[in-house]
Amino acid sequence: MTATGVHGLLDPGAAYGFALAGDAAVLAAMVRAELAWVRALADAGRAPAELPDALAAAVSVDPLDLVSVADRAAEGGNPVIPVVDDLRARAGGERAARFVHRGLTSQDVLDTALMLVAADTLDDVAASLVRAGDALAVHAEAHAGSVMMGRTLTQHAVPVTFGLRAAQWLASVHDALRDVHECRAALPVQCGGAAGTRAGVLVAGATHVEADDTARPTGTGSGGEGLDLPGRWGELVGLSAPSLPWHTRRRPVTRLGDTLSAVLSAVGHVATDVTTLSRPEIGELSEGLAAGEGRSSTMPHKRNPVRAVLVRASAVQAGPLAGTLHQCAALTVDERPDGAWHAEWPTLQRLLCLAATAADQTAALAEGLQVHADVMRRRVEEAGGLALSEWRGLVRDLPGAPQPPRGARAGDYLGDSGPMTDETIRRWRERTPR
Amino acid sequence: MTATGVHGLLDPGAAYGFALAGDAAVLAAMVRAELAWVRALADAGRAPAELPDALAAAVSVDPLDLVSVADRAAEGGNPVIPVVDDLRARAGGERAARFVHRGLTSQDVLDTALMLVAADTLDDVAASLVRAGDALAVHAEAHAGSVMMGRTLTQHAVPVTFGLRAAQWLASVHDALRDVHECRAALPVQCGGAAGTRAGVLVAGATHVEADDTARPTGTGSGGEGLDLPGRWGELVGLSAPSLPWHTRRRPVTRLGDTLSAVLSAVGHVATDVTTLSRPEIGELSEGLAAGEGRSSTMPHKRNPVRAVLVRASAVQAGPLAGTLHQCAALTVDERPDGAWHAEWPTLQRLLCLAATAADQTAALAEGLQVHADVMRRRVEEAGGLALSEWRGLVRDLPGAPQPPRGARAGDYLGDSGPMTDETIRRWRERTPR
Amino acid sequence: MTATGVHGLLDPGAAYGFALAGDAAVLAAMVRAELAWVRALADAGRAPAELPDALAAAVSVDPLDLVSVADRAAEGGNPVIPVVDDLRARAGGERAARFVHRGLTSQDVLDTALMLVAADTLDDVAASLVRAGDALAVHAEAHAGSVMMGRTLTQHAVPVTFGLRAAQWLASVHDALRDVHECRAALPVQCGGAAGTRAGVLVAGATHVEADDTARPTGTGSGGEGLDLPGRWGELVGLSAPSLPWHTRRRPVTRLGDTLSAVLSAVGHVATDVTTLSRPEIGELSEGLAAGEGRSSTMPHKRNPVRAVLVRASAVQAGPLAGTLHQCAALTVDERPDGAWHAEWPTLQRLLCLAATAADQTAALAEGLQVHADVMRRRVEEAGGLALSEWRGLVRDLPGAPQPPRGARAGDYLGDSGPMTDETIRRWRERTPR
Amino acid sequence: MTATGVHGLLDPGAAYGFALAGDAAVLAAMVRAELAWVRALADAGRAPAELPDALAAAVSVDPLDLVSVADRAAEGGNPVIPVVDDLRARAGGERAARFVHRGLTSQDVLDTALMLVAADTLDDVAASLVRAGDALAVHAEAHAGSVMMGRTLTQHAVPVTFGLRAAQWLASVHDALRDVHECRAALPVQCGGAAGTRAGVLVAGATHVEADDTARPTGTGSGGEGLDLPGRWGELVGLSAPSLPWHTRRRPVTRLGDTLSAVLSAVGHVATDVTTLSRPEIGELSEGLAAGEGRSSTMPHKRNPVRAVLVRASAVQAGPLAGTLHQCAALTVDERPDGAWHAEWPTLQRLLCLAATAADQTAALAEGLQVHADVMRRRVEEAGGLALSEWRGLVRDLPGAPQPPRGARAGDYLGDSGPMTDETIRRWRERTPR
Repeated sequence: MTATGVHGLLDPGAAYGFALAGDAAVLAAMVRAELAWVRALADAGRAPAELPDALAAAVSVDPLDLVSVADRAAEGGNPVIPVVDDLRARAGGERAARFVHRGLTSQDVLDTALMLVAADTLDDVAASLVRAGDALAVHAEAHAGSVMMGRTLTQHAVPVTFGLRAAQWLASVHDALRDVHECRAALPVQCGGAAGTRAGVLVAGATHVEADDTARPTGTGSGGEGLDLPGRWGELVGLSAPSLPWHTRRRPVTRLGDTLSAVLSAVGHVATDVTTLSRPEIGELSEGLAAGEGRSSTMPHKRNPVRAVLVRASAVQAGPLAGTLHQCAALTVDERPDGAWHAEWPTLQRLLCLAATAADQTAALAEGLQVHADVMRRRVEEAGGLALSEWRGLVRDLPGAPQPPRGARAGDYLGDSGPMTDETIRRWRERTPR
Repeated sequence: MTATGVHGLLDPGAAYGFALAGDAAVLAAMVRAELAWVRALADAGRAPAELPDALAAAVSVDPLDLVSVADRAAEGGNPVIPVVDDLRARAGGERAARFVHRGLTSQDVLDTALMLVAADTLDDVAASLVRAGDALAVHAEAHAGSVMMGRTLTQHAVPVTFGLRAAQWLASVHDALRDVHECRAALPVQCGGAAGTRAGVLVAGATHVEADDTARPTGTGSGGEGLDLPGRWGELVGLSAPSLPWHTRRRPVTRLGDTLSAVLSAVGHVATDVTTLSRPEIGELSEGLAAGEGRSSTMPHKRNPVRAVLVRASAVQAGPLAGTLHQCAALTVDERPDGAWHAEWPTLQRLLCLAATAADQTAALAEGLQVHADVMRRRVEEAGGLALSEWRGLVRDLPGAPQPPRGARAGDYLGDSGPMTDETIRRWRERTPR
Repeated sequence: MTATGVHGLLDPGAAYGFALAGDAAVLAAMVRAELAWVRALADAGRAPAELPDALAAAVSVDPLDLVSVADRAAEGGNPVIPVVDDLRARAGGERAARFVHRGLTSQDVLDTALMLVAADTLDDVAASLVRAGDALAVHAEAHAGSVMMGRTLTQHAVPVTFGLRAAQWLASVHDALRDVHECRAALPVQCGGAAGTRAGVLVAGATHVEADDTARPTGTGSGGEGLDLPGRWGELVGLSAPSLPWHTRRRPVTRLGDTLSAVLSAVGHVATDVTTLSRPEIGELSEGLAAGEGRSSTMPHKRNPVRAVLVRASAVQAGPLAGTLHQCAALTVDERPDGAWHAEWPTLQRLLCLAATAADQTAALAEGLQVHADVMRRRVEEAGGLALSEWRGLVRDLPGAPQPPRGARAGDYLGDSGPMTDETIRRWRERTPR
Repeated sequence: MTATGVHGLLDPGAAYGFALAGDAAVLAAMVRAELAWVRALADAGRAPAELPDALAAAVSVDPLDLVSVADRAAEGGNPVIPVVDDLRARAGGERAARFVHRGLTSQDVLDTALMLVAADTLDDVAASLVRAGDALAVHAEAHAGSVMMGRTLTQHAVPVTFGLRAAQWLASVHDALRDVHECRAALPVQCGGAAGTRAGVLVAGATHVEADDTARPTGTGSGGEGLDLPGRWGELVGLSAPSLPWHTRRRPVTRLGDTLSAVLSAVGHVATDVTTLSRPEIGELSEGLAAGEGRSSTMPHKRNPVRAVLVRASAVQAGPLAGTLHQCAALTVDERPDGAWHAEWPTLQRLLCLAATAADQTAALAEGLQVHADVMRRRVEEAGGLALSEWRGLVRDLPGAPQPPRGARAGDYLGDSGPMTDETIRRWRERTPR
């Protein structure tokens, strides 16, 4: 492994996301997709019965070299070509090699591999969101009665509770989790062949490989009675198998991008509140930092809200990346476009890495968050009568309207904060699929 | 009405979208939201019974002036403040005026108004997509057997049918329509009051207005037995009424942006194929242009694929706009952010206008599209043996594998093009909710 | 004028930018470009001598109707076609009409018109930046000794002065102003004819129109001795005239977008600091608001930092718009692309409007800014020893190193704040071209 | 080196860019910056005289481990902290260690390191652009008389020459090269210390280290007579040394992003023309591909225009990334922002890698480009009279105007194509600084 590439030096914490969606994960997914296809063929008698296990064993003993594959990707313009070359070299002979990648095209394998990576990443993101949500629910519950100043356009507005604020974050996380689950469940295998007609798949399906290793036609153009190679492939890799390829219909990609961007928007919002309320002049929140975390290279006293800062950094990058995926979808042409497909790959990979890392960081942030309810209360007291000015305005000169009680305090003007907080927590606890 | 502003001079065809989501539509929606709120209050006995009709009549006789409202929006930083001023001036006295906007905040009205505009726009987009889909289904059916060269990375690949290509477009439109319906059904009313606690709403709900126009407290802080002002408001304007405000949880906005961007990606993809296949050297498609359409300012012979060009122009703008909405969501802070909310408004409006116009243009494009199946066939014939090179490669040296028949032609190597086309049409015709 | 379109309802303050770069300004610029071309032709004896004045008079008496032109733009896909139609109708006869737009193409006129609009807008932006810079220089000078806490990653770092902060803003404004001047000086006329060869221009140049209104060839294909119609056109409209058309080389557009985005980044940065330091808990700055400015629809006490909020809202939209211009440049194809050119128009217009409005708002913001040096000092005192912790760390255990003086205060640890502030002000005052 | 990270698997050809701007290059630049600072201190007698060489030797013998540094970057939120730790551990004792990073802050080192990486990358991009431009100039010269159909909005317009088209590409490359040179020359060192005041720098400068290794104050707060540590640092690393730090004024970053995006727009435009004109039905250009290049995983006959496709894929990603840098600049707050700075790093790195790779690929593309002038001529002949329709229209019914000669052909209507082509080549050859 040479030093070429990007290892997270400029993305502190990125090792987390790379483990899920870095190049090693993508290469493993490409190999997994190709092996499963060989198995689908063999299961149907369309490839030698022993090939799947033999190939898997060969790859296990002599794994593909990531940097070598990456280097050779330039020649044909995609990484599947060297992967297929390397797998065929491990298939145990020229004849067996012909059943590797048989009937597929590069796009089938790369799109499927990226969906496999997406599946693993979304599962991990979901787990992080559950951790974050559980921690936020605890904060919301504990602080349902902790009055703090509401702020709009940076200025003091009317009182709220920190419980309600945490409930809003929780609802954001809940929304994002629901999106992740829906998107995850729909991730599709790609199986269209060279131009989306499945013509090569049918040829592959039409050739029965006998026990004595001779081939014979199955006699049907469609690959035999009930043979569903795409569906079987999907089962083997754990993805859905749509009836129509999506070579040129990139909604699975844009939807994935939108979902990842929605996750990053949700956690970015939480982080933005945390960095703001951690300002020393406000001091209502602080990150629970372990020794060494949040330190500065020069100022010994510094304790930076480092997780929230990193989450914000990730979040602000997400929207334009998801936007690029939409543009690629719009620029798709023919049966495979001249660049718009290629631009998706690193863009999607980047979004997957950012979302996984940021969701994990947010879980840790939520779990360790320190809430300074006393400071919140003090700020409200300092704001004094301002907190009730809306109330007074609403009932002034309106005889019969219920006036603020004598000696009314901010805590008397909280509207539905309590019930809304409770309801949000209840929904989270009852509905979250785990 | 002064000449200030943008009228579509640089957005040919934009009048269509402006009619749905231009400033006049947004102002009308703000007024509609405020009037419905007064009605919700009056229905519950929390505002004078005659106020809703009186106010509606006054506005009808003396409508708000768009340019004046727009000009006065700068002072407080949002257009709701002058709208409320103008409505109160039409309420028939200072006392009645107090029930206008009572308990709400600017964000309640602006967010709700934008959702109302979105609802109308999405309904129109859905209708355009249905028109487009119906036309594409006819093309797909008519050309299920029209063989054309498949192209990948601009080069000839294996044969496809134009029916399958049209079916892919149709499936894109179908996906987008489903997204539009789902998004439309979930559009929410915003009702949180000054800082999302509904404190002002509760005060409004706690003041009963007697027949003799005196007020009395209802005796309950929550606004009375079963009083649900947000829910009633939602019913009156035709939006859902979530249990929790979304002042700071902007998923309704990002989801709307993603949906509109998905519509534009889908129709952009169709348009990209149309401009490409309309190239004179390819000549497989042409736009059905009426006299004058597609003309040039200097070249009398020109017939530009003008609708497809305009759709592409809209589509390429969409992704980054939707991305901006995600960034705004991530930058949300406090109970209302210092700019991230404001940046949403024109961005969302632009996306609504672009999507409505482009969806309509795509419907017209699909309806008028001229398919030159003879040219398609000729291109395949010119490509000759290339069209079958994959097939030959798949069976070469594989004894027993089904060889291409003697004299095989491109039409013999179409895989599942036919069944996939039929199935896509069937799904469209059976599932489209109209 | 119908109500269709966008009037700034969702862009508070946008009337400012619309006056410079709204549709009326663009239409006027198109007419100005066409009239100047007729004059260039007539000056060279290539159009009837009386046509320029006659046409100008006709347009003045019977101006083009913006909404009508906008509506008719859809047919041919650009607004120049109806403009040419309308001008020809005012030319005083069919023969005279032939000299309108003679030899040009739509892109010549639209690109040139947008550069004219850009010129006016950049001039205005420059004036606003000068106002902003002058005000900031006064603040920087007045507060060169006002110590405040420096903050990094939201936490207290080491002391700075508000003078240095203001000097940084000033330097930002100075950088942006320099960019604006450079970009403004290079704005080019577009003159390439139908496909960038200037073939039609040469034909126009080769036909001499005699006093008796008959035409004769000039005898040279190039339009006569030294005839430089593009150069003359550029002189007449006040733009540079490059030797090569830029139909497909969109750097003038991307550079303009980058410049406008740089302006918005610069003023956005100032505004972000202002909203942050205006937080009541920090309270070091406040906007100088007139009566009514910054008010809320419900909370009588509210004084929102409304200008800074609006500037931020504009700034956050800019980057992706400029990015879209770059993408359009990359997608340019042939002699005029199928959508990538069209997408530039509204995107560029939007950037022009946003920059003009935000620069003006920033000037007002800077001029009215209230600096609370006493609060700044108090925050530093509250931070106490922290302010000097870096200093102490640097000299601890380093015998002979200069220790903080006994009783050292934050004001003793300001490094080069003073000289850097002075130098920045001096550079501004000496170098700003006005 | 573990497998974590991104190695170009999804960015075919990216190894080129990673070698210049990958993590290894960034880490090397951080070390180079820190070592140069130690040398600047030592040269001025502010650090032990032998430290620079000793430290350089120690790093050479025991280089920093990239993956370890990357992993430890999360703790403090930036990679400089572990770099400083590792360098101090190699400084030869606790006392010497104190002179490593003395007076600087993380941002000084990271910003400077990214500018160093940018310098190397821009130099390489410039060299690639020179290669591309030289090759394009040869094409433009060779084909100054090769007539081809001009196309606008995909349709045939009037004739052009391929020489002029190549001259337009050349002018794009020339523009980009000029931008690169200007940006390169202005790349600045960052030297502001903890909060941009250079307070720590002054303390570092105020401590003279004697030959016997004791320290003494220099007696001046400013670091001694004429001591200019930032300037000396800039000299040592080859960057400019601005009088004011740019911690919060991010124009150097946005300008770099705009320049890289402009490079990608320029080469993307060339590539878009190449993929389009390489379509088999047009066939006017083809990439010069070596054996194996452009192949498909399944279709033996395929020869994809792979370099142009990859250049387009890079180009379409650039604009939004540069846009993100502008947004980060606008979101900058305080003396160092809470995420907006961090988001710049990977975004800038990505742009650097994309631009370097794409510029090199474009050079190869231009050098190998095959121009099929015979096909171009044939297409013009097929278009027939259309090519002259504008000309005929311009002179029709205009007695005396120079009519097309009898038997006129497309080559008679080329306007200034020849002179403009020649002039563009001349400018390139005379002005390009090499």
